[in-house]
Amino acid sequence: MKISEIGEAGLLKLIFPYCLPGTVGDDAAVLAFAGENLVVTTDVLVDRVHFSDQTTAAQDVGWRSAAANLSDLAAMGALPLGITVGLGLPPDTPVQWVEDLYRGLNACLERYDTGIVGGDIYRSTVRTVAITAFGKVESGAVIRRNAAVPGAAIVVTGEHGKSKAGLELLLDVNLGQELDLIDRQELIRAHQRPLPRLDVVPMITMLQPEFVAGMDSSDGLLDAISQICRASGVGARINRSAIAIPAGLTKLTENPIAFGASGAIDWVLGGGEDFELVLCLPVSTAYALVELIGGTAAIIGTTTANPEILLVDDQTEILLTSHSQFQHY
Amino acid sequence: MKISEIGEAGLLKLIFPYCLPGTVGDDAAVLAFAGENLVVTTDVLVDRVHFSDQTTAAQDVGWRSAAANLSDLAAMGALPLGITVGLGLPPDTPVQWVEDLYRGLNACLERYDTGIVGGDIYRSTVRTVAITAFGKVESGAVIRRNAAVPGAAIVVTGEHGKSKAGLELLLDVNLGQELDLIDRQELIRAHQRPLPRLDVVPMITMLQPEFVAGMDSSDGLLDAISQICRASGVGARINRSAIAIPAGLTKLTENPIAFGASGAIDWVLGGGEDFELVLCLPVSTAYALVELIGGTAAIIGTTTANPEILLVDDQTEILLTSHSQFQHY
Repeated sequence: MKISEIGEAGLLKLIFPYCLPGTVGDDAAVLAFAGENLVVTTDVLVDRVHFSDQTTAAQDVGWRSAAANLSDLAAMGALPLGITVGLGLPPDTPVQWVEDLYRGLNACLERYDTGIVGGDIYRSTVRTVAITAFGKVESGAVIRRNAAVPGAAIVVTGEHGKSKAGLELLLDVNLGQELDLIDRQELIRAHQRPLPRLDVVPMITMLQPEFVAGMDSSDGLLDAISQICRASGVGARINRSAIAIPAGLTKLTENPIAFGASGAIDWVLGGGEDFELVLCLPVSTAYALVELIGGTAAIIGTTTANPEILLVDDQTEILLTSHSQFQHY
Repeated sequence: MKISEIGEAGLLKLIFPYCLPGTVGDDAAVLAFAGENLVVTTDVLVDRVHFSDQTTAAQDVGWRSAAANLSDLAAMGALPLGITVGLGLPPDTPVQWVEDLYRGLNACLERYDTGIVGGDIYRSTVRTVAITAFGKVESGAVIRRNAAVPGAAIVVTGEHGKSKAGLELLLDVNLGQELDLIDRQELIRAHQRPLPRLDVVPMITMLQPEFVAGMDSSDGLLDAISQICRASGVGARINRSAIAIPAGLTKLTENPIAFGASGAIDWVLGGGEDFELVLCLPVSTAYALVELIGGTAAIIGTTTANPEILLVDDQTEILLTSHSQFQHY
């Protein structure tokens, strides 16, 4: 049997028994180390699977690779110590591409006061960027997916759907004629230079919430809500009007020929790669956190004992099936 | 310009300025963490570059991947905390191959009381196994390449050349007709199931040598000696008669048609992937260490102020140029 026949979920189920108990199921693994917690996460990007020359210059591949891994640390409540870079290259790779990749990696890492501490370069038939990031989190401050209880406020740290919109603009130059230059650049930048929310970590530490569950929204907002709900054994009521629709995204998806009736909300819920955090906390702490974060952070709903995930507006309740948003195989 | 034109050395030189100061140049990076040292190493194996179905079953790919990374930890004087596995797979990969890979990984890891703590599975055009290993070493017990001084004893923890011999036997079924079954199996096993020398780490800690420099012999015995000498600014006199030639290897290379005049010593010095340790310590501690390790551990020479590396026997001195043993591009 081929792995394409069992899918990603089947593969993960197969691999799970081979991992040390208690280490998998979150954005990163947590290891006890010298009385503190070492947080470790690995993420790999492959040419023509996760990026392409059309949409992503080497500097952006670097930035995005670093950002994805730093976001996994933020999702665990950890601050970064460093990353290693395993770089697979075909012999005909331009030297400039490699240098630009490292420029992009470091541009992102320096913004978050961290850097590259080692790695491996190897020959491969396809350009591959394998990053492992390490971080540190105090005991008691680890954020896990399975810690939500019914009645918690669901917080998002920023807007969703912009990265997807930016990608679509890059893939189709005819798209978005109705956008002004600033809107267009903002959406493309959201895709090429996402900002992991490490800034939120010390805020959570400061507020000392009674409990906090969460993860990042790398596979989409709805996916994050679903994963947290499933791991915690709860459901969610999401208030549709509380979900910010980025201005550029509204304009872009007003074209009914390209986007049909559902429009922007589909990309907001399912787009992915915005690298915001989705957090479940006690309501009072959630208000304080949203205030601290500012910008477009918002409480978008509450967790429920009923395990369904519902999108609610004035008139209707829509049941959102908690399917996986992205099948890698 | 293509990377094939600047070679691996050129690539490393290009990447070096993008790494945090003091973190590269050894088998692994050392990061201060909560008053202790976190050791981190990354190693990637790619199908048809580092392994092939002909020589390496999936379980052996798993074992060798784990062993290579654990060996890098041992080379730093660290004991393992865990590994992450980034696994790139084409959709037509057999499920059995994946399961066997994890079996092999865990068989090796369990032998050294450690395990898999996380990872990433992703679609790729080529099977790729990217491993990052984490370990712990006390301050003052870190083994680095650059700590050798003239007059140190050079210790090897075991025999060299067997892994290379095993690989050649697997590549050419007509080879080694003069070997009995036990010799043949021992050489093949050395290639498929190498044993990283984590057992030596607590011995060094116990002996508290005044200084210790070293690395593992993954790229060959001579490469290890050269790298340590270059990093430390010393040379070496290697006593040819002190270097063990594995029995099976002698028999295998007695065939002058296949091996020419130089024979076994070439594979012993340049073969690679035996994953022993090469250590430079004060002479008295070196004797104690060799005694503790037992088996085929030996003092094979001494470091010198003269930066040349010489292979010495009763009659002659041969200058071994300290070139890199293996160009990845």
